[in-house]
Amino acid sequence: MPEPMFQKVALVGLGLIGSSLCHVIRREGLSGHISGHARSQATRDKALEIGLVDSVHETAAEAVADADLVIVCVPVGVCGDVAAEIGPALKPGAIVTDVGSVKGHVIAAMTPHMPPGVHFICGHPIAGTEESGPEAGFASLFENRWCILTPTPDADAAACDRLEAFWKACGSSVERMDPQHHDLVLAITSHVPHLIAYNIVGTAADMEEVTRSEVIKYSAAGFRDFTRIAASDPVMWRDVFLTNRDGVLEMLGRFSEDLTALQRMIRNGDGEALQALFTRTRSIRRGIIDAGQDEAVPDFGRRGDIKPQE
Amino acid sequence: MPEPMFQKVALVGLGLIGSSLCHVIRREGLSGHISGHARSQATRDKALEIGLVDSVHETAAEAVADADLVIVCVPVGVCGDVAAEIGPALKPGAIVTDVGSVKGHVIAAMTPHMPPGVHFICGHPIAGTEESGPEAGFASLFENRWCILTPTPDADAAACDRLEAFWKACGSSVERMDPQHHDLVLAITSHVPHLIAYNIVGTAADMEEVTRSEVIKYSAAGFRDFTRIAASDPVMWRDVFLTNRDGVLEMLGRFSEDLTALQRMIRNGDGEALQALFTRTRSIRRGIIDAGQDEAVPDFGRRGDIKPQE
Repeated sequence: MPEPMFQKVALVGLGLIGSSLCHVIRREGLSGHISGHARSQATRDKALEIGLVDSVHETAAEAVADADLVIVCVPVGVCGDVAAEIGPALKPGAIVTDVGSVKGHVIAAMTPHMPPGVHFICGHPIAGTEESGPEAGFASLFENRWCILTPTPDADAAACDRLEAFWKACGSSVERMDPQHHDLVLAITSHVPHLIAYNIVGTAADMEEVTRSEVIKYSAAGFRDFTRIAASDPVMWRDVFLTNRDGVLEMLGRFSEDLTALQRMIRNGDGEALQALFTRTRSIRRGIIDAGQDEAVPDFGRRGDIKPQE
Repeated sequence: MPEPMFQKVALVGLGLIGSSLCHVIRREGLSGHISGHARSQATRDKALEIGLVDSVHETAAEAVADADLVIVCVPVGVCGDVAAEIGPALKPGAIVTDVGSVKGHVIAAMTPHMPPGVHFICGHPIAGTEESGPEAGFASLFENRWCILTPTPDADAAACDRLEAFWKACGSSVERMDPQHHDLVLAITSHVPHLIAYNIVGTAADMEEVTRSEVIKYSAAGFRDFTRIAASDPVMWRDVFLTNRDGVLEMLGRFSEDLTALQRMIRNGDGEALQALFTRTRSIRRGIIDAGQDEAVPDFGRRGDIKPQE
């Protein structure tokens, strides 16, 4: 048995990402000990029961004591509070990272609480499902996905390399990026898509002329694809929009401009322009499939093997 | 071997829907003979080669001669032209139907060309994938999906029942609906979702600060779900937006209003309102899964078993 990469890894937060990390750390033997903290007693009990962690702790400070790697897996809105709590308990030389979908805010909120000698390097695995909680995790979540690290210019090179090696051991490819650029890239690839998915589902739910039952029955015509990401964790996503406000508003502005142009094409009956756009968008899908970021099976592999109910 | 439901079924148009119908008609033995027409020689050749049809014809009029059931499976924009061509060739007593995503326009465009004694009853199977063409079809496409029939008040009851029985034999559940109501229901469950998917993919493709390569690499963060339906057939969708203009503009107006309200919540930092919306939308997803219109597997069953490329 080779020496594990870390003596002790601490997970602060045991939801989808935290629990998936537990699974893959264990499977790959990346840590001698996995300690964990979750705010709720129910999650802590479940984490022990299903064997996510070796030890579970009532406070984040207890969980991170003696840890070589601390991974903060909480909604980005509370990262600052967590940093304030764990700061004094961190071991000198420890690496502290996070998994949040917004990097500028997290760096600003956590950095002031990091003691000297601790290596604070933010990260973001581009992976997830619409599920939440300690039972939603699985070891292969990060496989063949990208993880973006956003080290600040003064970050320790050796610590960055260790963190990169950790994510690679979890199955990910790793990219380094400027935090502000990250927030803009994620605004268009993640935050605005979630926002418009939440929005169309909300619009459909509020209609009077079309019943909720009709929306549900005929959702296979396109609508249901949006409901998947609109079922994602509400608190996590609330925090994303509150903390990446500038990036989201910038990209949302462009989306709305483009939508207005599309609306005008429809009103004017400009079939040529519509067809040109609809043809252009096909190539992006091909690019995503060629890049291994989605599967080529039609209709996400749904093949009518599910039974409709009235 | 029981008597088939029809002596001869004619398919005008052999794309995804037409070819899927060929497969299921054959599997279920619903017709003594399947004749087909497609505009392009390449499609006609392919249809014979892969055994979709028993006979293939250069003109739609030839294909429908002597047919008991004629199913027009072409983009809604050309339904009127097809009706004009086939009208004189239709057998008295034949049932003529279509599969288009817009019903008001199709009824208006086709009805004037239907000779007396022919039963013209529009239909719309709520089923499809992002693929197109004669090789995209498969026999189970309609299984456990809804098919909406929109008979006009003067439609022959026995013919409606026969058409309903046909769709049930293809695996679908059948609902009857007023054509105008259909167009409103589909505007929100299908047309506007496709429009905003095309739009976000277009917005992302046009950005300068974020490269196309970045959009593709990090698409697993949400964006890729939209690219599936934005890869649908451009001509079919152009015609949907041109022919259901009123329904689409009405629903798009509501979507945009709601999006503006959401934008304001973000600008004002109204976390409570955001969280309330994001919580509400989860229940629609549950409704769709409970109704058997989508699968409960997280992330559409993607489990990292695909390989990323630089």
